Amino acid sequence: MPTRSMSGADPARSVGLVEPRIQQFDTPLRLDCGAVLDHYALVYETYGTLNAARDNAVLICHALSGDHHAAGYHAGDAGKPGWWDNCIGPGKPVDTDRFFVVSANNLGGCAGSTGPLTVNPATGGCYGPDFPLVTVRDWVESQARLADALGIECWAAVMGGSLGGMQALQWTVDYPTRVRHAIVIAAAAKLSPQNIAFNEVARHAIRSDTKFHAGRYYEHGVVPEHGLMLARMLGHITYLSDDVLMAKFGRELRDGKLNYGYDVEFQIESYLRYQGEAFVKRFDANTYLLMTKSLDYFDPAARFGDRLRDAVARTEAKFLVASFSSDWRFSPARSREIVRALLDANRDVSYVEIESELGHDSFLLEIPLYHAALRTYFQGIAVGAS
Amino acid sequence: MPTRSMSGADPARSVGLVEPRIQQFDTPLRLDCGAVLDHYALVYETYGTLNAARDNAVLICHALSGDHHAAGYHAGDAGKPGWWDNCIGPGKPVDTDRFFVVSANNLGGCAGSTGPLTVNPATGGCYGPDFPLVTVRDWVESQARLADALGIECWAAVMGGSLGGMQALQWTVDYPTRVRHAIVIAAAAKLSPQNIAFNEVARHAIRSDTKFHAGRYYEHGVVPEHGLMLARMLGHITYLSDDVLMAKFGRELRDGKLNYGYDVEFQIESYLRYQGEAFVKRFDANTYLLMTKSLDYFDPAARFGDRLRDAVARTEAKFLVASFSSDWRFSPARSREIVRALLDANRDVSYVEIESELGHDSFLLEIPLYHAALRTYFQGIAVGAS
Repeated sequence: MPTRSMSGADPARSVGLVEPRIQQFDTPLRLDCGAVLDHYALVYETYGTLNAARDNAVLICHALSGDHHAAGYHAGDAGKPGWWDNCIGPGKPVDTDRFFVVSANNLGGCAGSTGPLTVNPATGGCYGPDFPLVTVRDWVESQARLADALGIECWAAVMGGSLGGMQALQWTVDYPTRVRHAIVIAAAAKLSPQNIAFNEVARHAIRSDTKFHAGRYYEHGVVPEHGLMLARMLGHITYLSDDVLMAKFGRELRDGKLNYGYDVEFQIESYLRYQGEAFVKRFDANTYLLMTKSLDYFDPAARFGDRLRDAVARTEAKFLVASFSSDWRFSPARSREIVRALLDANRDVSYVEIESELGHDSFLLEIPLYHAALRTYFQGIAVGAS
Repeated sequence: MPTRSMSGADPARSVGLVEPRIQQFDTPLRLDCGAVLDHYALVYETYGTLNAARDNAVLICHALSGDHHAAGYHAGDAGKPGWWDNCIGPGKPVDTDRFFVVSANNLGGCAGSTGPLTVNPATGGCYGPDFPLVTVRDWVESQARLADALGIECWAAVMGGSLGGMQALQWTVDYPTRVRHAIVIAAAAKLSPQNIAFNEVARHAIRSDTKFHAGRYYEHGVVPEHGLMLARMLGHITYLSDDVLMAKFGRELRDGKLNYGYDVEFQIESYLRYQGEAFVKRFDANTYLLMTKSLDYFDPAARFGDRLRDAVARTEAKFLVASFSSDWRFSPARSREIVRALLDANRDVSYVEIESELGHDSFLLEIPLYHAALRTYFQGIAVGAS
């Protein structure tokens, strides 16, 4: 998902300079796929202060292409705040004057946590394609251990959009007593075949790139740039609505006329190519592959006879579920499925469906009604004195 | 678009064995892009008999991946009828007992008409990437010359779905007096940025394939199979609705369990790969590229100050416009734009919006209400005695 923030750079409302930390784990982690990671590390950031009661911690879960840098800025990179900076900070919807916010790069990521770019102790080279496929459940387990390490017995809230929302939902199922509130935004209880199909095309693009070298491209000093670029271009189409593309680009021609060739002609082509090229510089193809697989696999109801209601019956959290009217990647109907299952299981759920023409991307953007809903919800979360 | 027919092989309702013919043209054709084709050929088929009044001819225009073989079967290929065989034949909606049906492979195609696979007289090799980009207007012009050659002054009807429907619409604008009826199915008056974006990703996939060799892959004895396969996989996602994918594939696993790897796991992945691989065997990548460009460029209103109403004000045909409820590639809203412009211009238009879960593909399928609408409409087209 795009990491661009729409918020202005108001220093008074920024968490300011942040520095990522690393947490090492030496207790073996058995993954859903059967593989065991004997050692692994998670890179994470925190914003705000953990209070004396240790009951004001909020876990932010990132989506497909996100990372731990959700808010504030890094030294030497002051102009570019974290990907959810408009939402997290002093006086912002997730108010760091009240909450202690934790944001980690997911296992398998490419921003510092153990993943394909990490040295595999068994070989001395990068894991690359040998890094095992991880699931949303695996992420929750790894995040639970991070909570242990930080002395957080129970999260005030676990929150995320898209794949991040799926982690929030999975948290409530796997650790019912360790989550007081789950904020599940622009997500789905499982992917549809169309969702899987888009992911499959993206994977095929990466894996059929001749520079992919079966995932061992690092050893060849190259990256499967065309494949990864294609994957990102395709992703962008699904993050935005047809309406917002029409409003932003219409059928505008870059040169004001048709050139009858294959260079960029329409502005939308220019936009997609730019997004694709920028992504290749910052993201690892093997991580992209495994993140899409984790999306495909996500299905908390599967262990409960395909009954989502039964999966969520065990949860104890209160829920805020949010969706956006023009999101066709994970449409409001998919959020309503979650809400329906929670209601059927007599859980405490609030649902907000935001009118927005901005598509799936909306969850990252500073949309007034959306942020008002988040703000109000978080204001209602009780925390002890700091 | 898929060329699979859902119709059973009822010999009594088939046009039977057909043989393509070739029409050579030696009058130079100036294309929209400025290039001139001194000589070119169109391969075409006909079904039924041209009557004495020569007023019962119907032109079938094909879509992105179609060809001239719309009905009946070829010698040695009896099991696989033409792509619109369910619609064209004795007693079928386009009744060959009444109508003389003409179906040509478009200029730039790869099924026998002059295109990238043709020898370029200037070089002695294949045109390949040097074949000029052709537009829907160019196709109409080339088809008009085919009509001249066949002695057809005025079509009883010009008909097509998707890109084929765009040709039917363009015919009414460019040759108002040569079309009595236009049947415009699952089309749009121009592509949206989202449509263009999908085409751009498909083109990028083909052009970034290392086997593409700047379009001169023939000379290297290879084809950009991965890129073309990707383009087709992506196309298929947009031809089908999320609902029909759910009904056909759900989240069914090919092996009944997750394998935690990148081989096919979900049935939808298997379907897409199969479709992609089959397409590579029958279609040329350079043709695919230019067909998508022709789609992007289509915009009959552009020459009329971007006012579609003004573009269609000059038309004299009667129109049947048809769309399908679950078609999100060219949604009913896009068809209604055409209808609205025709109504604003006081043209004679009938509109039918068919309930179908089958997405854009619907236009190729034997959907009872859809075929009933076509049948009724064609029954109302007056033709002279045979």
